[in-house]
Amino acid sequence: MALLDDDRLFPSEPVQRDLARDLYEGVRDLPIISPHGHTDPRWFAEDQPFPDPAQLFVTPDHYVFRMLASQGVPLADLGVPRVDGGPVASDGRSIWRIFARHYHLFRGTPSRLWLDHSFRHVFGIDRRLTAETADWYYDHIADCLAKPEFRPRALFDRFGIEAIATTEAATDDLRWHRMIRESGWPGRVVTTYRPDGVIDPEMAGFADNVALMGQQTGFDTTTWAGYLDAHRARRAYFRDFGATASDHGHASARTEDLPQADAAALFGKALNGRCSAEEADAFRGHMLTEMARMSLDDGLVLQIHPGSRRNHSDAVMATFGRDKGFDIPGPTDYVSALRPLLNAVGMRPDLTVILFTLDEAAFSRELAPLAGAWPCLRLGPAWWFHDSPEGMRRFRETTTETAGFYNTVGFNDDTRAFCSIPARHDVARRVDCAYLATLVATGRLDGEEAPEVARELAHGLAKRAYRL
Amino acid sequence: MALLDDDRLFPSEPVQRDLARDLYEGVRDLPIISPHGHTDPRWFAEDQPFPDPAQLFVTPDHYVFRMLASQGVPLADLGVPRVDGGPVASDGRSIWRIFARHYHLFRGTPSRLWLDHSFRHVFGIDRRLTAETADWYYDHIADCLAKPEFRPRALFDRFGIEAIATTEAATDDLRWHRMIRESGWPGRVVTTYRPDGVIDPEMAGFADNVALMGQQTGFDTTTWAGYLDAHRARRAYFRDFGATASDHGHASARTEDLPQADAAALFGKALNGRCSAEEADAFRGHMLTEMARMSLDDGLVLQIHPGSRRNHSDAVMATFGRDKGFDIPGPTDYVSALRPLLNAVGMRPDLTVILFTLDEAAFSRELAPLAGAWPCLRLGPAWWFHDSPEGMRRFRETTTETAGFYNTVGFNDDTRAFCSIPARHDVARRVDCAYLATLVATGRLDGEEAPEVARELAHGLAKRAYRL
Amino acid sequence: MALLDDDRLFPSEPVQRDLARDLYEGVRDLPIISPHGHTDPRWFAEDQPFPDPAQLFVTPDHYVFRMLASQGVPLADLGVPRVDGGPVASDGRSIWRIFARHYHLFRGTPSRLWLDHSFRHVFGIDRRLTAETADWYYDHIADCLAKPEFRPRALFDRFGIEAIATTEAATDDLRWHRMIRESGWPGRVVTTYRPDGVIDPEMAGFADNVALMGQQTGFDTTTWAGYLDAHRARRAYFRDFGATASDHGHASARTEDLPQADAAALFGKALNGRCSAEEADAFRGHMLTEMARMSLDDGLVLQIHPGSRRNHSDAVMATFGRDKGFDIPGPTDYVSALRPLLNAVGMRPDLTVILFTLDEAAFSRELAPLAGAWPCLRLGPAWWFHDSPEGMRRFRETTTETAGFYNTVGFNDDTRAFCSIPARHDVARRVDCAYLATLVATGRLDGEEAPEVARELAHGLAKRAYRL
Repeated sequence: MALLDDDRLFPSEPVQRDLARDLYEGVRDLPIISPHGHTDPRWFAEDQPFPDPAQLFVTPDHYVFRMLASQGVPLADLGVPRVDGGPVASDGRSIWRIFARHYHLFRGTPSRLWLDHSFRHVFGIDRRLTAETADWYYDHIADCLAKPEFRPRALFDRFGIEAIATTEAATDDLRWHRMIRESGWPGRVVTTYRPDGVIDPEMAGFADNVALMGQQTGFDTTTWAGYLDAHRARRAYFRDFGATASDHGHASARTEDLPQADAAALFGKALNGRCSAEEADAFRGHMLTEMARMSLDDGLVLQIHPGSRRNHSDAVMATFGRDKGFDIPGPTDYVSALRPLLNAVGMRPDLTVILFTLDEAAFSRELAPLAGAWPCLRLGPAWWFHDSPEGMRRFRETTTETAGFYNTVGFNDDTRAFCSIPARHDVARRVDCAYLATLVATGRLDGEEAPEVARELAHGLAKRAYRL
Repeated sequence: MALLDDDRLFPSEPVQRDLARDLYEGVRDLPIISPHGHTDPRWFAEDQPFPDPAQLFVTPDHYVFRMLASQGVPLADLGVPRVDGGPVASDGRSIWRIFARHYHLFRGTPSRLWLDHSFRHVFGIDRRLTAETADWYYDHIADCLAKPEFRPRALFDRFGIEAIATTEAATDDLRWHRMIRESGWPGRVVTTYRPDGVIDPEMAGFADNVALMGQQTGFDTTTWAGYLDAHRARRAYFRDFGATASDHGHASARTEDLPQADAAALFGKALNGRCSAEEADAFRGHMLTEMARMSLDDGLVLQIHPGSRRNHSDAVMATFGRDKGFDIPGPTDYVSALRPLLNAVGMRPDLTVILFTLDEAAFSRELAPLAGAWPCLRLGPAWWFHDSPEGMRRFRETTTETAGFYNTVGFNDDTRAFCSIPARHDVARRVDCAYLATLVATGRLDGEEAPEVARELAHGLAKRAYRL
Repeated sequence: MALLDDDRLFPSEPVQRDLARDLYEGVRDLPIISPHGHTDPRWFAEDQPFPDPAQLFVTPDHYVFRMLASQGVPLADLGVPRVDGGPVASDGRSIWRIFARHYHLFRGTPSRLWLDHSFRHVFGIDRRLTAETADWYYDHIADCLAKPEFRPRALFDRFGIEAIATTEAATDDLRWHRMIRESGWPGRVVTTYRPDGVIDPEMAGFADNVALMGQQTGFDTTTWAGYLDAHRARRAYFRDFGATASDHGHASARTEDLPQADAAALFGKALNGRCSAEEADAFRGHMLTEMARMSLDDGLVLQIHPGSRRNHSDAVMATFGRDKGFDIPGPTDYVSALRPLLNAVGMRPDLTVILFTLDEAAFSRELAPLAGAWPCLRLGPAWWFHDSPEGMRRFRETTTETAGFYNTVGFNDDTRAFCSIPARHDVARRVDCAYLATLVATGRLDGEEAPEVARELAHGLAKRAYRL
């Protein structure tokens, strides 16, 4: 049996399958727009070989190691680095063997689809990963990684990436982006303005980050006016390195539109570390509205990614730090939360605010009705745990009827796993074509209109929504 | 390609499609019971021609103009009237052209199904609406509207309407219903008792409305007892004009069963405009229980339509007023909210309370278990944003296994878009037949039982539940 | 038309149906592991004939009588016993006729599938139950029940039960389990430790139950230390009678990990009946963590079944008591609720905590991410109202992509309706095989891997998770 089925993710009913195949043929080779992601710009700046297979596929991928952890594999055995620098497994082959021995855990998951796609299309493999094939796999991938055609820029070209966005903190010096630009390499790698560290009073280092932003911009960030000016200057700096968007990962979608004096007072408290939890939350919420106002001036698209309860395990946080698979979603309110921002600037059609959710119950109930009315709003694609065939299908089924296709923004891969990017876009294209095929086969969409919609979902909507 | 696929909304798998077709054949031409809607009784009273195509299809339909607004079309450009009477677009052809130019926005939405069905079946059109065909469409529909066979009563007959309910405020004089009755026209158009304006202390004009109800009935509505008597009298008046139901559009499903003295005290405060938000909410909740008690006497079916957060945009509310597409659902609790009413009167099998929701998460979790136990409860159909093929399918999939078919009440079109009524009922019949076909094809329902269930879903359940 | 379709619950699309059939062939006859249920151990101890058909199928089954009640049939007419011992219907044939006359209410429900399966496979019937066939049915089933091959132990063997767990209160003397063991009958019937009555300060008789537990164990249960020792002793006693699990039916999933002095103080208040509602809730939450700690010592699997708002109708509770179909689910939080327990013991791979939900919105949002990370967590199957074809399908579709198959535990029938056990397991096996067939047909699972997964879902996972 082949590693990948050519008709994967298409309906098996022949009428729908043929429709889906035809639609997919029309979008399969479109260039990739990756407007929101977490690849490391250093890869493209230095263009050095990726390290060993375990470092490529296991150790940095929280989708992978959290699943192994859920069945009792210690994170340290997978080489996940400790905060205190203490010893963890470092032998790539040993880590890879553990991974291979547990590969059945990924049956039915999107990780399995992405991994098999990477094995097949990036590394030319056509046998299943098992305990028996683990060493062969390891050697084969390691051999590949040593070759020039597996370096980051070569893969960037092979993957057909038209533009990719990375994400950097507001105080990042963007040195790798500068190095990319100065290298003359034509690949389009843009940054994204991620100011959580200078907006969230509860984040470690907040005051220091704000002070650094003052040094970087020459504004007096001990004052509210200077702080806002510093944001404007950093946004301009990010735009110089291609940024077309900002991104905000707050715990909730709360926004506020406070009187300026009240916001200034909260900012003062925040700098002094005297905000209550409620005040910190209000300040974060108000800053989303300030960011939206700046977007009206500088054109950055505003992305809101709420809903994750981070670091659910105290032990994992203490030993291994953030982003280790123990971030768990919870219910998320959008209707009352977004109202202050929307009433401030939401009727402006020149503003674009892209909403994401981890609470699928909000799609049909809140997000599609919001995006189907407010001119500034667009819906981001199925995100994180829902970036999967069933999740993407549910996204279309629960949003299209109320918001249509044109209030959505195509696909984001949102990944730091570089080799999975073509796989993830391929899954999205297949699932969307399958959905369109179902609409055509059941008389809900004209067969002559479907190819255009398919191209929009695969390429056009992302390019336009993100102004890339 | 034809404007409509004859097999639309049926499964494309041949076994299921054939089953669905057969079931649909048995219900396609059943008369329409429309027990809950918002058509204007004046249409049937005066039987005047409908105005131009834009006034028929665009300007009054919040499903349509909110979608255009979501992509930046100003509501004023679509002729939506301003609260202050200020200038808005009034040229029907210009409005129609804007609509046609944006018709692709409706791809994949139920509005598209309803509009195409109206174009095809009401106006005999078989080409797609586009920027190019806009003028042809406009002229063709305008020509039709001038003909006698496109007047309201003629369409009423052509649509096969057995009975239709409109909705009027408790203080409405029902003049158009009187005019219909006095005209001798045999079409069955009944009213529905909608007392929100005399029950909700927070609604503008509450005290004036209550005073008017006093004048209309001769009861002293400055007293609690007189106020309840006035309700009884107005309900009787509405029953004289065919009403079989009351309807209540509160923000939540909250009910209360307060001691009479406490209710009377709240009523006094409400009349004097001194209710806190909590007291107003408690009063609304208590009045649902009073309405249910009156239903035990007069037989009106009680409908509860909660969950919409109205007028989300301050600017749209200030400029264009209520019902302009900026009503956004939120999470809705039913379990604790309904308990007071249910414990007061809910075991009475001669009472019928019909529940609606905009929070689909409540279907399998709360509403189906409630309706599958309490004798008085029935589930209204998929509502508003969910009045769509996927929404209706999810309604059946998430309610049938717990509540069965017989605790549901068939279909409501809930619309003011007259031409869409046959389209909406046709969609519901097709989706229900497709669902039944799936049950039969997967051995979950006997093929000999399915036709009877299909007829119940299309006609019988609505007729009996609403006592029409 | 036959009472049961051989291909029921399989996809009707031929490719998927054939795949599903093949998978089902491989699991159809696997022995039944029933690790969580409510059959009466007395049946197996005494091996007496079941009483009449109404007593077997109608009067004790709250799935059945609540549906009849929802359409106005008084519970007393179905023989449901009154709390006060007052008169209710007692003639089995009359009750059966009412049931038969309303059998159409179950169309589309899992009860119908279970009942028809029992009629066909337990009693050899192949005609539909209707008002006309009611008496024939009654006589036929009554005749069967008089025969030796319809006694509990004979059915246990015929059903292919490898192991079944009953559920007993912590203070139960387990006399029937003792009688089973002493009888020499080899059927494996194990108990489950259900300590709600000695853990929930708000349950009637709490202090008496705790005192009884002291007498049973010889520990001084007026002290916190003695109370915990008594739990340890009772758990050991239950393990002597085969228990491998405890079960906890709290209203919420709240856990706490209080300082021992605080827990001791709450326990003191609880014994004296002086806990506030909040304190009682905190105590229940803390006791889940104590139970988990004991599980680390004695190996019992911890099951948490939260989310039901019990006894929604005051009248039904007053007249007929608990468990009469008026238990309605509500929204359930898991993320913050479980955190104290998980941070106390959740990284221990030798602990197994199995989570159930009645709030399906939590599956993709909370439960799958939790089980896909924490080593101790496993997801129980679709439960109660969701123990149905659509419910099971949604369970797989919303959990597999994030948690995989191996963080789930196979099927629980959770029933007191003995004859429905083979039917329920058959439904689960069919639905799981249909799901796997869909994955294979759409290239998401290798056809060579699917049979192994099917066997795990039908047998292996339950056996291992429950340590049976």
